[in-house]
Formats: sequence, structure tokens, C-alpha cells
Amino acid sequence: MSDLSDDGFLDGRLRVAQPRRGFRSGADAVMLAAACPAVAGQAVLELGCGAGVASLCLGWRVPGLHLVGLEAQADYAGLAQRNALANGMTMQVLTGDVARAPDRLRTMVFDHVIANPPYFLGGTAAPDGGRALARREDAPLAAWIDAGLRRLRPRGMVTLIQRADRLDAVLAALAGRAGSVAILPVAGRAGRAAGRVIVQAQKGARGSLRLLAPFVMHREPAHAGDREDLTDAASAVLREGSPLVPLFTKL
Amino acid sequence: MSDLSDDGFLDGRLRVAQPRRGFRSGADAVMLAAACPAVAGQAVLELGCGAGVASLCLGWRVPGLHLVGLEAQADYAGLAQRNALANGMTMQVLTGDVARAPDRLRTMVFDHVIANPPYFLGGTAAPDGGRALARREDAPLAAWIDAGLRRLRPRGMVTLIQRADRLDAVLAALAGRAGSVAILPVAGRAGRAAGRVIVQAQKGARGSLRLLAPFVMHREPAHAGDREDLTDAASAVLREGSPLVPLFTKL
Repeated sequence: MSDLSDDGFLDGRLRVAQPRRGFRSGADAVMLAAACPAVAGQAVLELGCGAGVASLCLGWRVPGLHLVGLEAQADYAGLAQRNALANGMTMQVLTGDVARAPDRLRTMVFDHVIANPPYFLGGTAAPDGGRALARREDAPLAAWIDAGLRRLRPRGMVTLIQRADRLDAVLAALAGRAGSVAILPVAGRAGRAAGRVIVQAQKGARGSLRLLAPFVMHREPAHAGDREDLTDAASAVLREGSPLVPLFTKL
Repeated sequence: MSDLSDDGFLDGRLRVAQPRRGFRSGADAVMLAAACPAVAGQAVLELGCGAGVASLCLGWRVPGLHLVGLEAQADYAGLAQRNALANGMTMQVLTGDVARAPDRLRTMVFDHVIANPPYFLGGTAAPDGGRALARREDAPLAAWIDAGLRRLRPRGMVTLIQRADRLDAVLAALAGRAGSVAILPVAGRAGRAAGRVIVQAQKGARGSLRLLAPFVMHREPAHAGDREDLTDAASAVLREGSPLVPLFTKL
């Protein structure tokens, strides 16, 4: 894989090589890692790990995890492995499709599954949120969640970040298989509709669904040009690797 | 029906007789009415109208509506009719079950359906959010939404208020039949999980789901004893009958 950029995450605590073109991880991957409540000694599977940003952020925060990634594109899988080593971590990366898990993965069981399923399929974004495309995505999103639930131990936790407008599809795919669902809306600015949701659920659990207070990324009510305007909470997560886990803890 | 209380809503602009015991409408009914975007000349059906509070709040805000209520309990139905008259409004109230609409209702088509489906079935609350009960409720909640969608004209709007922990069941019942879903979380206090959701959807529409910023009821971060601590926005809705409609408007 050529033409890579060397990107800093967590205020440079993590250095990750990513292709300059194609899929590049950003804040969503960091947020996903921050929401996963894994503790030392546990096994975590990331579906569609790309260059490994989410798993590596999680591994940075929680030493002693067994990190496994599944990635369909072999060059990204290789990159994730290299990025893990470059940051002093070990990550086992398997190449394969989410809908058809490789045999090696089928024998493994995890305490946690994390995923940032593709927001658009077919390699192109739908600038208008195109309907035909959105419908074509339904099956794949369900397939991602199905694959994750299959690899979880009973009471294991799945944590997903996804476009807020697909919340219904996420909940439908979890229905009857995972419970104690918690939804964290992620809004760009206070008072705005959520752009993303982080959804966490426990396999086989039956607890009540919770719709949490939104996590707000930016301080200013409108785009502030080049000025840095992350909220303190967003800065803590994106810059310092603070966990979002406490927000999901039942009060 | 004996042993009625005479309750003021919208700061006394509406006087409503309700039984002292049994189901009594409160803030949820007022919030539901505030969220319905009906305009003069339209027909609005309220499923399970009880003593009529939501429909009458809506009728107070939007003169010139054709208000119809469906209520399973004949004494509540009679009360709704009386309450409408006592407030100078006309409301046609049919007695019947939501799951088996009376013949007269089957011939009618509405621009809007509003409902505050029962939060607990069987007449008892489940203090622990009991699972057996929660599962028993699934079918009825779906039946309420089904009944509402059947009575809507194409592109008509359904507006529901419900416990936030049943958001998944609400979305499942709407799936494939109504779109452009908008979810307004209603939180008791800023930073808290939502206690209620107001869900609005358009029959036959295919627009994206939106998860709106929460509407916060109380100003203080914790229970403030007897002191009045509604937020300005909640006070405007509950006291002055201000609409929540603008919050649902696509920006």
C-alpha cells in the first residue's frame, strides 16, 4: 500500500499510517474505542478494522487486551498489523468478509465486539442520503450486527458507532438477540439533531433500553472556521483518550 | 362517573374533569398535543383519548380542527365529550378498542393520529420494568401503531409519546409503513437519560430518521422539592400551550 499518511490520534500518543485516499479513520473510530467497556484480560473483536485505529485507541487505554480485527481488504489488514507493532501493541488481524467469517474466526469467542460499519456501501457516498442506496445497506448493516453477535460470548457486549439516521436498522438487527441497549446520541453542537449514535447492547440480556443524553462535540453554536472548538468532554476523548464508558453505566 | 376532580391545563386555560382515581392525564398529554403539527381544517384522531386532555390542548392551540377520539372505556369517552363541550370545543368520541376499530371509525380517514399508548398493561405498573410484562406489551403497542397508520391518509402524520425504553418497539412497528421518523427525547433534567420519547412519522414516506436534541423539562440538576423548576421551554409548552412543532421541522 503506497501513498500513506502518518496520522496522530489521541494527541499524537498513537501514530497510525493510513492511505491518503480511500477509507480513513477519524473521530468516529476514537469515539467507538472510548465507548467500549473492555477491561484487561478480555478479548475484543473489531469488525472492519481498517487500519486499526479504533482497536489501537482501545488498546492504548486498556493494556492487556487480546485484540483481534477482521478486515475485508488485505492491504488494510496488513496496515493494521503494522500500526499495532509500530505502537508497541499486538493485534491479530484476519482478512475476510464480515458476512462470511473466516474459519479461524469461527472458533473464537469474544467479550466485546466493536464496529463502525460502513456508512455508505458501494464505495460512494450518497450526498442526498439516497433512498435506493439506503435500502441496499439494510441487509449489510444487519449482517455486521449478526456477525458480531455470533462471535460474542453470552452477556458479551457489542458497541457500534453509526449514522444516527440508521438507528432503526441497528435496533431492528439487535432485537431479540441483545438487550440492555444503550443509545448515546452524538451531536455536532448542542441543540442539534444527532449525527451519529453509539449503540451498546449485551448479548442475551433483557434489560430496558436507555436513550442517553447526547454527547456534544463542538462548543460553538455554529461552525467556527479554523478555530478549535471542541467541548471539554470531546477534547478529553479525542485528545486524551478518556473513556465514554461512564456515560453508559446504569445509574 | 363519580369522584371527579376539575383540573386545569395550560395554566387553567383548559378545565378538564378527570376521575380522582384511575388513569389521569398529565404533562405527557400536553406534550403530545404540542408536538402535533395539525393545521386548521384538518382531521385528527386520538387513540385512547381518556378524558380528552391531549385533543383538547391541541384544539385550543389550533382552532378549526375536526377532533375525533377513540376510547375503550365508555365512562372516559363520555367525559371527553363533556370536557370538550365545557371548553367550547366539539370532539367526536367513539367508544371502542384500538385493536378492533368500530365500524364508524373504519370509514374515516385522518390527517393526523396522536396517541399516548398505555405505558403498562394489565392495570398495574411494573416497578422493576418487569420483563414478562414488557414482552406482553409488545403486541399491544404494535397494535396501537397499526391502528393509527390504518386510519391515516397517505403522507398523514402519526405522533406518539411513549416511555423512552420502548423506542425500539415503536420503531419496529413503524418500519416499512411510515418514514421520515423524528424522535424527540424528553429528559427530566439536562444530562439525564430520556424518560419519554415523542416519535413522529409520516405514512408511506421514505425520508431519513432524525434523532433530535432532547427537550429538557426541569431546570435544576436534581429534584428541587416543592419549588417550581420547569425550564422556560417546558413552561411555555405546559403553561402557555406553545407548540413543540418547530423542533420537528427539518432544518
